[in-house]
Amino acid sequence: MTVNDTNAIFRIETGHYRVPLPRTLSDATHGEISAFELVTVRLTDERGEEGVGFTYTVGRGGSAIRELIDRELGPLIRPLDPRRHELLWQEMDGRMRYVGRGGLVAFAISAVDMAVHDLRAKRCGQPLWRLLGGVRERVPAYAGGVDLDFTLEELLAEVEGYRAEGFDAIKIKVGRERLEEDVERVRAVRRTLGPEMTLMVDANMRWPVQTAMRAVHALRDQDLYWLEEPIVPDDEDGHAQLAALGIPIAAGESLRSLAEFERMIRRGRLSVVQPDATNAGGITSWMKVARIAEASGVPVSSHGAHDVHAHLLAAIGNASYLEVHRFGLDRYLRRPLRLENGCAVLTDAPGIGLDFDWAALAEHAVAPATGDVATGKAGMQ
Amino acid sequence: MTVNDTNAIFRIETGHYRVPLPRTLSDATHGEISAFELVTVRLTDERGEEGVGFTYTVGRGGSAIRELIDRELGPLIRPLDPRRHELLWQEMDGRMRYVGRGGLVAFAISAVDMAVHDLRAKRCGQPLWRLLGGVRERVPAYAGGVDLDFTLEELLAEVEGYRAEGFDAIKIKVGRERLEEDVERVRAVRRTLGPEMTLMVDANMRWPVQTAMRAVHALRDQDLYWLEEPIVPDDEDGHAQLAALGIPIAAGESLRSLAEFERMIRRGRLSVVQPDATNAGGITSWMKVARIAEASGVPVSSHGAHDVHAHLLAAIGNASYLEVHRFGLDRYLRRPLRLENGCAVLTDAPGIGLDFDWAALAEHAVAPATGDVATGKAGMQ
Repeated sequence: MTVNDTNAIFRIETGHYRVPLPRTLSDATHGEISAFELVTVRLTDERGEEGVGFTYTVGRGGSAIRELIDRELGPLIRPLDPRRHELLWQEMDGRMRYVGRGGLVAFAISAVDMAVHDLRAKRCGQPLWRLLGGVRERVPAYAGGVDLDFTLEELLAEVEGYRAEGFDAIKIKVGRERLEEDVERVRAVRRTLGPEMTLMVDANMRWPVQTAMRAVHALRDQDLYWLEEPIVPDDEDGHAQLAALGIPIAAGESLRSLAEFERMIRRGRLSVVQPDATNAGGITSWMKVARIAEASGVPVSSHGAHDVHAHLLAAIGNASYLEVHRFGLDRYLRRPLRLENGCAVLTDAPGIGLDFDWAALAEHAVAPATGDVATGKAGMQ
Repeated sequence: MTVNDTNAIFRIETGHYRVPLPRTLSDATHGEISAFELVTVRLTDERGEEGVGFTYTVGRGGSAIRELIDRELGPLIRPLDPRRHELLWQEMDGRMRYVGRGGLVAFAISAVDMAVHDLRAKRCGQPLWRLLGGVRERVPAYAGGVDLDFTLEELLAEVEGYRAEGFDAIKIKVGRERLEEDVERVRAVRRTLGPEMTLMVDANMRWPVQTAMRAVHALRDQDLYWLEEPIVPDDEDGHAQLAALGIPIAAGESLRSLAEFERMIRRGRLSVVQPDATNAGGITSWMKVARIAEASGVPVSSHGAHDVHAHLLAAIGNASYLEVHRFGLDRYLRRPLRLENGCAVLTDAPGIGLDFDWAALAEHAVAPATGDVATGKAGMQ
């Protein structure tokens, strides 16, 4: 580095929390989830500006993700200018290739990359959504229920609640023991919501292709906006087969590398792609996926982490709905995303605006926060 | 578990070492490698029988791999009967899916799964190669040089040395700055070795497809047994394009999940597949890949870890050459694999026979070994 090499990162601090959910949730693949793991990254530059990023898991792997950040990614990016986000991403992605190419390494890169984008946006005095392109200030959102085990009554109460909150688009889980149960539940929800509401369903990879095909036929008259993750994410041909039946297929939350997204969009014939900036390689990767999708005329939605994804969907031309998720990270954010009439409303505040209540989070710490300053070595090697 | 539930695992101990290489090695993608990371797993059952497994990296990610074993995989398999290797593999693969599907998690599963197979073979009183099928007692091997930066003189001395050791099959690295240099080096090696010796080349994913196509044409008269990893492992169509030129294409060391192998064999039209039991999900995965390859008439070779892979290639019908690797793990094994006239010779000793010199390894420990007994919790959660 000969240009501005005083702009190195001064401090990297990571945290690992096990955050209980307000209610135990379940879907067709991950089973019952009573808590999620949150791994946080705080980068401080030499001016004292702080960038904050995070990733999360459904319960396993958090300590290894944090270890990767502390031992590998931190030392790799420390000497670099944190404003050069693509350089940092290339460095992390390239140097970790042997153990990387998606998988758990992508979670670690995601958290660091998010902090890098937050920091660089703050340095520019810009909210991230505008720095990345600034297409819109309001992003239509849908309410994503994690409700596979809800009774029918609970399910209907849930979707009524979403409508009362102002959402005009709602997603429910499918993938129960018998397909007939799913069909019954979807019909009941559609009856309750009426024909005007946008309704999606999410099978969380539960079905073999043939069951998914049966489901497509059985649900054909329910005007579904999309069918999400009907089958395992590795079966690109299977996705194309389902798409050929004429129902919009959505997927992406299980894909972890650009190559996986490119193949799934091209070969899987996705109608909507749903990258997750917390596990697909960060905001840098998310934006690349959005461009790949744009080239194929495919709209982009999101998965979880709506406080972050609102910025990204606001910045691109091919945005579909933002998922508003029920993991309840909002409880630990001092300024959670503002929702108004089913739309996320972006602001002028610089960066991403992840203002964590660290004291409240500390109660759920799995291990003490590790910090690292240029002169010290705590938690780093 | 109602059957034999006294057969749980009593103790799980992990180690993490940074082992210097006898000489700094380099290839076209991973650059200079002066040490490798070794992560070891020792499982002890209630009878005191021990199973040993390991994985390695080219320098990064080892501490996160160990963390995964200590915090996630260990507790998952502890209550299970270690003789039920498929059950344990399904448990690890399934429960880690969200952060898994290949990547770094596959390294951790590999090390544990290897220890499980070692333990179960010992419990059967059988060498692993026989327990898995026992097709042959001798496995033809090739010497795999990691010699991209060797001068031409050093390169020729190296291959002469391999021949003097009894090898009749040798692989050298390609992927230097200019393709012409590679062509010159391959020609010189072929001239030195004569037309009878088997010669492979390995580009370690260095080339764009068009350069790889140029290389195929430029090396067409050198009677290459295979061209290994000419391009990035995500470009299945590119592999098929190269295969269509009529040169055998080998790949596999960068693939980490069954789905990746299945697609690369089917779509990539591989001539030889090279799964690595230390990073593709263990011996359980390796054997599955071998079956997928068998169904397509594709022979199987290996990558590194020849002490382990000798057992696996001895156990299948569609075996190609065993790679004998130069990372020098042998220096830390009390009974390294016996090579005779370029063949690996299997024995009757139960298990895999990974008899590590733990005291010698301890000098290279990155952190103290963590152990866990049923009544204690050191290193586990």
